[in-house]
Formats: sequence, structure tokens, C-alpha cells
Amino acid sequence: MRRTVQLLPAVLILAALGSAQRRGLDVEYRDTAGRLLGAALVDEGGWKKLSHITTQIGPRLSGSPQLERALQWIFESMNAEGLENVRLQPVKVPHWVRGSESARMLAPIDKALNMLGLGGSVGTTPQGVTAPVIVVRTFDELEAVGRAKVEGKIVLYDDVWTDYGGTSLYRGSGAERAARLGAVAALVRSTAGASLYTAHTGSQRDSDGAPKIPAAAITVEDAAWIRRLLESGQAVTVCLKMEAQTLPDADSANVMGEIVGRELPNEVVVLGGHIDSWDVGQGAHDDASGVISAWQALSLVKRLGLKPRRTLRAVGWTNEENGVRGGTAYRNEIAAQQKHVAAIEMDDGAERPLGFDFSLRDAGPESPQSLSAQRKLEEIVRLLDAIGVTRIVPGGGGTDIAPLKQDGTPTLGLFNLREHYFDWHHSDADTLDKIDPQYFRRCIAALAIMSYVLADMPGTLAD
Amino acid sequence: MRRTVQLLPAVLILAALGSAQRRGLDVEYRDTAGRLLGAALVDEGGWKKLSHITTQIGPRLSGSPQLERALQWIFESMNAEGLENVRLQPVKVPHWVRGSESARMLAPIDKALNMLGLGGSVGTTPQGVTAPVIVVRTFDELEAVGRAKVEGKIVLYDDVWTDYGGTSLYRGSGAERAARLGAVAALVRSTAGASLYTAHTGSQRDSDGAPKIPAAAITVEDAAWIRRLLESGQAVTVCLKMEAQTLPDADSANVMGEIVGRELPNEVVVLGGHIDSWDVGQGAHDDASGVISAWQALSLVKRLGLKPRRTLRAVGWTNEENGVRGGTAYRNEIAAQQKHVAAIEMDDGAERPLGFDFSLRDAGPESPQSLSAQRKLEEIVRLLDAIGVTRIVPGGGGTDIAPLKQDGTPTLGLFNLREHYFDWHHSDADTLDKIDPQYFRRCIAALAIMSYVLADMPGTLAD
Repeated sequence: MRRTVQLLPAVLILAALGSAQRRGLDVEYRDTAGRLLGAALVDEGGWKKLSHITTQIGPRLSGSPQLERALQWIFESMNAEGLENVRLQPVKVPHWVRGSESARMLAPIDKALNMLGLGGSVGTTPQGVTAPVIVVRTFDELEAVGRAKVEGKIVLYDDVWTDYGGTSLYRGSGAERAARLGAVAALVRSTAGASLYTAHTGSQRDSDGAPKIPAAAITVEDAAWIRRLLESGQAVTVCLKMEAQTLPDADSANVMGEIVGRELPNEVVVLGGHIDSWDVGQGAHDDASGVISAWQALSLVKRLGLKPRRTLRAVGWTNEENGVRGGTAYRNEIAAQQKHVAAIEMDDGAERPLGFDFSLRDAGPESPQSLSAQRKLEEIVRLLDAIGVTRIVPGGGGTDIAPLKQDGTPTLGLFNLREHYFDWHHSDADTLDKIDPQYFRRCIAALAIMSYVLADMPGTLAD
Repeated sequence: MRRTVQLLPAVLILAALGSAQRRGLDVEYRDTAGRLLGAALVDEGGWKKLSHITTQIGPRLSGSPQLERALQWIFESMNAEGLENVRLQPVKVPHWVRGSESARMLAPIDKALNMLGLGGSVGTTPQGVTAPVIVVRTFDELEAVGRAKVEGKIVLYDDVWTDYGGTSLYRGSGAERAARLGAVAALVRSTAGASLYTAHTGSQRDSDGAPKIPAAAITVEDAAWIRRLLESGQAVTVCLKMEAQTLPDADSANVMGEIVGRELPNEVVVLGGHIDSWDVGQGAHDDASGVISAWQALSLVKRLGLKPRRTLRAVGWTNEENGVRGGTAYRNEIAAQQKHVAAIEMDDGAERPLGFDFSLRDAGPESPQSLSAQRKLEEIVRLLDAIGVTRIVPGGGGTDIAPLKQDGTPTLGLFNLREHYFDWHHSDADTLDKIDPQYFRRCIAALAIMSYVLADMPGTLAD
């Protein structure tokens, strides 16, 4: 009894000591975070890089010479900065080319339609596809119209914008669904939050079972115009011409550099964005801002002479837009050989950052493991309070790190206000002038501090 | 003395009686305004007309068949509604045609530039103008660069948006100023409040003394891109091709209908907007919304069986955009023969209306005459309180009624929030989908009540 009596207080004392010793990560990393935050908020190097890739190189579609220029430039610049193990991981990517393209309403009004062919679409013959148009809002409406009225027509999907997931359905498989009912081409109202007569491209998929028909996005304005003409009882005829074609797979690469961990070099925190973009605008928000923010975060850690416990690696993944070949190859060839303790992607643009979303495979948001990770992340974001990055929400990741998530790596995404992202996304309007340099610096700061602490802290998120 | 003593109280009593008898216009017209307001706020006819002119007829440049269709349609519809003295007043208008056009950056990046030739510009030869680009923000900067560096170049004006007046200077006379220094073409950054890769056209003027060179607007995005390339020390070459030409003057007309005044048929309150537009988009805000609001205001007065003391006339003026021939002809041939007691124009789009601006020629805003008019107008807008139209501010009018103002007619303009007007203005984005039907109804209500009271009240604004 006496020993028991003696033991209990000892346990309590030890527990109390443990609690006192297990300082919050915000306490532990306050000084280091201050150095990183200060450096990021006055940083000019990130903007210079962002300016270079957007205005000197331009858009970077898989298979394009611009993408190869961007990869080479990052490879050389990372080496020049003294990052370690800088490399290009070869990846074969789909090679779709747009060629010349146009759409024109021929009747009842003769009018050029601003358009962008959808990535992966087949082209037309040189004389184009000329056919009457029918308009539907949804797949249910298409099915209700039925084959007899769809056959030989151009189907226009005029779904009202709700959110990206809901609306991009029609871009993704509208052509296939229309083709199965005998349509000769598909047009989709651009997947956009707001429009100033802007066309937005994006990927679409053909299915092996269905005939392949050309598919293009038109503007919100023209989709509404055509709908009104049809609703007034008039026939609308459109001519669509596209030279689009898919060439044999092209050579590309993931590009990466790192700071090798001082204690656990084979444990990795990876952060990045995708280096490819669509072939319009500058791919500035999507996703030059992400890949450059991640790289610059690493550059700042390096410049401050910080060397975390684990390896910290910045990656520019290739081919996110139309294949995810980069993210898949990274998982298969690199992550398969090294323990990845966390993966962070920034691929939502560089509007005002608000927090990180995160997810742990096989652990629901209410599981003890998730709650423990949530606590640690909340401690880390306390260090970002002053720049408005305060929230940790479930459901995180990014397209390029989804393969890592499937293998059990905890994944995080930097999320932001998303006020205008889908006004610019996949269009000629996604250009450097849409990025606020101060918000961009905050993104760099958030990535630098989050990734550094995750790479340096005693345990991992999954512990 | 006695008589004087008796007289003074009598004067005071009469003055007091006069004040009691001179009820405010808001009191006088409360019931009638209620009927007009209610009718306008549930009105569907205005929207049907707006929908017809924008989507069935489309844009209406001076000299175009669409403008003639619009004039005929209004003429026939006004007659069908039973408006009086419906007529087309013939007016000869400038006839500029755009033809095919394109701009391309050839070096250091090969890239199509979204563009719109400026109204009135000369064209290029079929092979186009290919030359190095120099960029300036202002005329002062252009002069500082000087002839030696301007000669043989394409001058890009990249003035930062401040307001329409300031920024449209470069659109208006940029080509002329550049031509005087030997430039071979002029490009202007689009005069726009916000951009999603949208080009905005508008008028420009050549001067007899200067060589005529082609002039076009490019997008805010491409202007920024070219500036960045130049600032990084690279030469930028652009090829501009334009088929633009000015044909002999074309036949057009002002269209109008009225309700003849029951007591003073030869005194007129005129209200309207311009029926022409640029040749892009639908000219929806600019100025289908104005001309249809004015017409529908009159239609509602007519439908309610109201017949004001003076004649109330709705006009669609032609050729506001590139000549003001309609407004000038109206003054010369019609207003010269009838006393115009007030003129109201709506030509600022149909965003949320806030009030009226007004001006009296030869009467400063602090003159007794202006203050008296201000009081009367403030009484009238009290009737519009419930729809947020509450303000009377100095400085009113509109381009088409400026000639009337010069002759001494009090002029008013309906003004609104102007949040997005210059995002859409003179571009393919000025389409029906940008008009909020409820705000449009408020515009109709405001015009109906203001014009009716001005036409019916015992005195006039200038009394």
C-alpha cells in the first residue's frame, strides 16, 4: 500500500513534468518562425521568380517548349542557390496541342464566339462541324431530350455556376455523354465564377466506348445569348473548327531540390505545386504561384542557414492539368523509397491565405490520431496568426499529392479566400497582374513555417 | 402710415397662405407617383424590350443594319402602343466599319493579342504594320521619349485606370499624338475598371494636321505583359492588321414618340438614351438600358391613362458613340421649334440607381435659380426614397442632350452606383446577363416619376 501511495504522486508528478516539458510547437518554434516570417514578408526573390516564369516563359502546357524551359530554369536556379540533390525526374506526359480554332454562330445572328477547345478534345475537319444547337443545363435534361433530338446536333451545356466540382462535370464528360446520344460536338458554358467575355479551358475525357467528338468552352455571355435565341423559338446554327490533336507522349520531368535532414535524412516533408499549366494566360495563380511559393519557402530556410531534423524538399510536379503523370511518378519512384511524413501542396492560387486543410488516410476527423495531428497543426498556425493564416480544417491535399495520400502520407493544402480564383482559372486572364504581392508573400511565409516545423519537430503528424 | 401698417400684415398673411398653398411636389404627386412606382416595379414589358434589342437585334453601330432594325422596331412598337407623333427623324451618320483585325506579339514571345480597333481608326495594309513597341504611361512621357525613339515604332499607352475621363484621353487622341512624333501605330491599354482579358473599344479622333495611323485597344493583361518584357530589357515586336475603314455617311434616324401635353402641348419634357452602340457585345448597359428605360417610362405613363400638362417625349438618339449627330439634329430641327423645359438622359448603365444630376445653364449651383430647382427636384426624389433614388447633385446631363443644355434647357441624368460599368463598357461583356432586372425596373420608375412630374407641375425648373 505504502509503495502504491508513494507511486501515485510520482506518476502525477511525472505527468505534470511531461506536460510542462512538452511545450507547444508554437512555443518551441517561436523564434525560428519569427525569422522565417520576417524574411518572407520582405522577400523579393519569390516575386522575381514568379515574374520570370509568368512573363518571360509564359504558359506551360505538357509537351510544350515553355514547360521544358521552366523545368530547366528551376533546375539551374535551385543548383545556383545551393539546394541539395537538385534533380529532374523524367516523366512521360500526354501531348495535346490546340492548333488554330474558332467558333461562329451562323444563324439567326452572324457572330464570332470566343472559345477555347477543351484539353484532350479531338479536332474537326478543316471545314469544321456545322450543326443546329440544342441547349441543356444538366445530364438529366440531356437524357430527357433523348437521342432523337440530340442526334446530329451540337449540344451546349449551360449549367449555372455553383462551384467548381459541380460545374466542371459538364466540361469533363459532357462531350462523352452527348456523343453517346449521337451529338456531333459539345460546347460548354465556361466554368467560371464571373465573366467578362472570357473563355476557360480545362481537361475533358473521352471514354473508350463512346465516339469522340470535338468539345470547346464558350463564354457565359454567348451561352446565355444562344439560350435566349433558342428560347424565343429560333434555330441556332454554329460552326466549330478545331485543329486539336493528341501527339505521342512527350518527355517532361518533375523538378526538385532539398535541404537534407540533419538527423533523419530519409524522412521527408515534401512541398510543392505543379509546374505545368494550360496553354493560355500565364498560368500565374494556377499554379506558378504554388510552385514558386514552395520553392521560395525552401530558399528562405536555406538562406537562414536552418537545417531541419528531416529532409525538406520542394517539388514542381509536371502534368497536373491533363494527366497527373508527375504526381504519380513521384509516388512510384521516389516516395516508394523514402518515408514521407507529410506532403503539402499549394494549388488554389495566391489570394489571401487563411489556413491549411489536412487529412490522414484511414483516420476520420474525430479519431484520436486526427485530433492529435489537428492539435499540432493548430499550434503551428498560431505562429501565422499575424498574417491571417489561422485555420486548420479537415479534407486536405492536392491533386499531385493525392497518390501519396493513398499510401498513407498525411497531406495538407494551403487554402485561401478564393474570391476570384475561378474568374481567372484556365483562362487568358490568369496572369501576374492578378496576384497581390503581399498575399503571395504570406503564402511563402505560411509554407515555410509549416513545412519547416513539420520537418523539424520531434514526432510526426501521424504519431 | 396707416395703410403701410395695414399692408405689412397683409403681405405676411399672403406669404403664409402662399406657403401653405404651395404644397411640396412630393405631396402634390404622391398618389400619381405611387401608381407609376407600383407599375414600374412589377413591369415586365421593359425587360422584354431590353431582351429583344440586345439578343434578337444585337449591337447597333452607326451605319449597321442592326441599328436600322432597332429603329424600325421601336418605331413600329411605339405606334402599336398608341404613343403619339411617333416618328423617325432622318439623320446622316458616320459609317465606320471594323472588318477583320488581329494583333500578334511576334517577339520575344509569340502570342496572339486580344484586341479591338478603335472607332474611326484607319486600317493597315493587308500584310499589317510590324514594328518594335515602346511603352509610355502619359503624353508627357511620350514627349520626353521624343521623336528619335518614337519614329517607326508602335506606341503602347499603358495608363493606369483612374477614371473614365482621365484614361480615355489616350484612347481618344493617343494615335494622333504618337503620329505627330512619327509612330506607325498606336495601341492603348483598354479603358477598363477591371479586366478578365477583355478588350474595350471606343472612339478616337484623327486630326487634320497629323498623319493617320491605325489605333487599337489591347487588354490590361497584355499591356502589363508587354511592359514587363520591355522593362526586362527585351525588344518587343508586334504585328497589327486592321481592315478598318470609314465609308460615306449612312442614313440613320432619331426615333421618338410622345404623350401630347393636355394644356401646354408645345412645351416639352424629353427623356431618352442612345439607340446606337459599339459593334461588340450587345450594347446592353450602353445604352439599350437607357433608351428602353425612357421608352418604357413613357409606356407606363400612357398605360395608366396619365396625360401631363406638357408634352412628354421619349427619344432614342442615334450616333452618340461616334459623332453625336442624333443629339445635334434633335436640337437643330426639333428643339429649335418647341420650348424644352427639361431634358433627361440615362446613359450610365442600369446598375443600382441613386439619384439625378442636373444643371442649369448660366446658373451656378449656388444661384437662387439653381437652389429653387434643387428644392423642386429634392421634393420629387422624395417619391423615390423607397427604391434608393434619393440624391440630387449638380453637373447633370448626357452627351445627347448637351446641345440642349447649351441652348439653356435644364438637363438631368440618372446616375447609379457605377460599380462595374467600366468593366463592361464598349466590350463584348456588355450583355443582357449583366443587367439586374430589379435595378432596371428602378431606373424605369425613377425616369417615369421624374419626367411625369416635370411635365405636369405648375411651373418649370427654370422658373
